[in-house]
Amino acid sequence: MDKIINVVKVGGNVIDDSQALKAFLKEFSSLEGMKILIHGGGKEATRLSGALGLETKMIGGRRVTDRDTLDIVTMVYAGLINKRIVSMLQSLGCDAVGLSGADGNLIPAGRRPASPVDYGFVGDIDPSGVSVKFLSMLLENGFVPVICAICHDTFGTLLNCNADSVAGAVAIGASRIAPVCLTYCFEKNGVLSDPDDADSVIERIDGATFRILKEDGVISGGMLPKVKNALDCASCGVKEVRICSADALLSVSGTYITE
Amino acid sequence: MDKIINVVKVGGNVIDDSQALKAFLKEFSSLEGMKILIHGGGKEATRLSGALGLETKMIGGRRVTDRDTLDIVTMVYAGLINKRIVSMLQSLGCDAVGLSGADGNLIPAGRRPASPVDYGFVGDIDPSGVSVKFLSMLLENGFVPVICAICHDTFGTLLNCNADSVAGAVAIGASRIAPVCLTYCFEKNGVLSDPDDADSVIERIDGATFRILKEDGVISGGMLPKVKNALDCASCGVKEVRICSADALLSVSGTYITE
Repeated sequence: MDKIINVVKVGGNVIDDSQALKAFLKEFSSLEGMKILIHGGGKEATRLSGALGLETKMIGGRRVTDRDTLDIVTMVYAGLINKRIVSMLQSLGCDAVGLSGADGNLIPAGRRPASPVDYGFVGDIDPSGVSVKFLSMLLENGFVPVICAICHDTFGTLLNCNADSVAGAVAIGASRIAPVCLTYCFEKNGVLSDPDDADSVIERIDGATFRILKEDGVISGGMLPKVKNALDCASCGVKEVRICSADALLSVSGTYITE
Repeated sequence: MDKIINVVKVGGNVIDDSQALKAFLKEFSSLEGMKILIHGGGKEATRLSGALGLETKMIGGRRVTDRDTLDIVTMVYAGLINKRIVSMLQSLGCDAVGLSGADGNLIPAGRRPASPVDYGFVGDIDPSGVSVKFLSMLLENGFVPVICAICHDTFGTLLNCNADSVAGAVAIGASRIAPVCLTYCFEKNGVLSDPDDADSVIERIDGATFRILKEDGVISGGMLPKVKNALDCASCGVKEVRICSADALLSVSGTYITE
């Protein structure tokens, strides 16, 4: 069996730039075979919150999600951005189906405990809960799932989740259908050894080098959970994990994460 | 073959009342066999427009949809309301999948001509375009499509459509899979012969009686397109068409529309 599934995560910087988004979706739609897109949120939710006079509160890079904020991220991620991407992909001949983690019970999540930090309606995902039945039905019938990071607790409550974690969980779940290549597209060329040098891409990171790079402070801040997440995928059966620039989707450049 | 498909449309008044919505979804989830829910928008979009300082412009009961308003209805209908309903249904053991007409190219629409009235990004639907392949895949695998009235022109533009028309088009499309019972749930007990008497439900309306009721002014205003739409469904192969109160879904009361 030589079929693979491409699972691609695209982040907020591309979402916020309509020209970059169009160029990216054109490349994504040209990927052959089974594929899945997971998208982040961009700044639209923060903008909408501001316009409605709501304060955006972030702790450690994560959005504190009270009831009003949950409504806003549900509107923006599952509504505006998801359907915008779906309609663009449809116009490119890509049979996209936009989904949240609640649809088809695709991604059940657990609400994060209120201690030590109460993030509100924020969820964490157990990859074993991803509905492989639903995913495989869509993929095997030629549909392209486009997934936002709004999940649910299965008891009627939506939860705001991390899009990198959603991508990881979906990639691990999809690995039970066919070998998965997971690509995290973001604003840099890969994991950089020197943040001021865009070309200092580290070609390969495994568990051992991750620990060294972390101790040396080369990987820090927002890159820590991203690389950690990628490593978890590599060790949970995802065939190939790459972190690269959004305009490098069709190339082989970037940082490869291996077990 | 005795299997049928229940296609149910629920309107804004139920959407706006969380207790009524919960009660309705409980009844909907108890319907056996294949089923589809189409939902309207309610007042949330108007509220959000107001909060953002945008004027809501209605002509003949239809929302004029400029670019900003399209974003708002996409957020509210395809995001907030759709995912709220999906998560509630999931908690009731109903494997709901929330969709717009863009997803899986489910419902292509044509942008309404700008003359005589320019409604902006408003679409009209040709029922023959409904993707029966996508619908039947979902239904035959036990999923319950939950559809909002945001469709697309297939060239990358979303369009705001009428939820009654979406329900009609979906019912006509689904009739190619199995016999369809279409139920329009709204705030009254059915089509009334006396608008001041909630019990004056007309039991049956066909094309001939519709013309008489219309001439006599018994059916007027917002009821005209609703009954016209229902008649179109009856004449396009939908097995049973009923207009009733949202709390009468499981009963047999209401107005039956026949060819």
